[in-house]
Amino acid sequence: MSLKTEELFSLENPVFRAYLFYNSVLVLKMMSMSALTSFIRIRNKAFANPEDAVMYKRKPITNESVERVRRAHQNDLENIQIYFVAAFSYLMTSPSPWLAKTLFLTFTAARIAYTLVYAVVVVPQPARFLACFVGYAITGYMALQGAVHFLA
Amino acid sequence: MSLKTEELFSLENPVFRAYLFYNSVLVLKMMSMSALTSFIRIRNKAFANPEDAVMYKRKPITNESVERVRRAHQNDLENIQIYFVAAFSYLMTSPSPWLAKTLFLTFTAARIAYTLVYAVVVVPQPARFLACFVGYAITGYMALQGAVHFLA
Amino acid sequence: MSLKTEELFSLENPVFRAYLFYNSVLVLKMMSMSALTSFIRIRNKAFANPEDAVMYKRKPITNESVERVRRAHQNDLENIQIYFVAAFSYLMTSPSPWLAKTLFLTFTAARIAYTLVYAVVVVPQPARFLACFVGYAITGYMALQGAVHFLA
Repeated sequence: MSLKTEELFSLENPVFRAYLFYNSVLVLKMMSMSALTSFIRIRNKAFANPEDAVMYKRKPITNESVERVRRAHQNDLENIQIYFVAAFSYLMTSPSPWLAKTLFLTFTAARIAYTLVYAVVVVPQPARFLACFVGYAITGYMALQGAVHFLA
Repeated sequence: MSLKTEELFSLENPVFRAYLFYNSVLVLKMMSMSALTSFIRIRNKAFANPEDAVMYKRKPITNESVERVRRAHQNDLENIQIYFVAAFSYLMTSPSPWLAKTLFLTFTAARIAYTLVYAVVVVPQPARFLACFVGYAITGYMALQGAVHFLA
Repeated sequence: MSLKTEELFSLENPVFRAYLFYNSVLVLKMMSMSALTSFIRIRNKAFANPEDAVMYKRKPITNESVERVRRAHQNDLENIQIYFVAAFSYLMTSPSPWLAKTLFLTFTAARIAYTLVYAVVVVPQPARFLACFVGYAITGYMALQGAVHFLA
């Protein structure tokens, strides 16, 4: 069963609505990383720029707690932004609504779990590996579906 | 007043046209960061890769002027790319055209101001904080609208 | 010749299909950078996090091979993600199908070449510069077309 484009791109299409909803949630989740970085920088008085450090009468330093949050944020940039693109192509392949919505939800939950075990409470491996892998596998599946579907 | 999808996604829709216009401007703005980094690397003869440094008979080094531009560029990656996604969801909520166009324009102006006070002429805080905050608040508002509008 | 929006956003439109196809390929290409980074981290036993290093009875260290792959990945984040946005605006300007498909293909090929000469087999300059420049010029052309087309 293949929907026409105007049906795919319709706010009547529950997959498109779910895409827009989870995208918004993921954006808010990524924004929380910027806020968390600022918070940890101030708590540790560890700033990257002289004009920031001077407000606390400090010099710029690096701090492991700050670097950890930054790595978690960087991992979001590396993984979530390609998900937005892969999910857009996947959406256009007329996927099963149930499967598509489950993948969007699982991806979002895995990325929130990833942040928690990486940057909030450090949990020993393989917790972080598993959370990252679930998101990675979903993005890969969607991109592969898109590549196969729109080949030639 | 809620528009139908085919009206939202139409080139007759001034909000969609504004979205496409400001996206293009923001892409050009982000591209200028790559050019600026290359320029400052060459001026300071500070290269990250041995195969680049060897052309100037140097070894790879890090340089604070280069690192500053790189941090400004990284901040673009962290903030502008989620804006593209948040604004897309927001666009689909049938926002007031006046408000939507004002938010797109303000976001773009704030990000250009951010680059100027961070990487071109270093202005004491809170100039950079304010420019960053305006963009952050707009992205958050749009993502929140999208999340609420498309929730189940 | 200008197409109507519903024709541009149609799966009958070969440019839109090509956009979705090359986006999927580029996502898979970017995902390969994460896999490559993990592989090189393990081969060099060079981990950024204590909880990863401890599995190999090591301390976190930085390693030049890892840093090189990370710079190549970062360059993808800086260049490919703005391409997705620029190409979306460009798509809506009713470009010549032949030109649009050629630009998408050339961009994808240039970015794959970039990774090969940067992170797989290190080739002396200007190989990497040229591969990067081709992708940069294409993104710039598309963003400029979008900005001009949707101005006012």
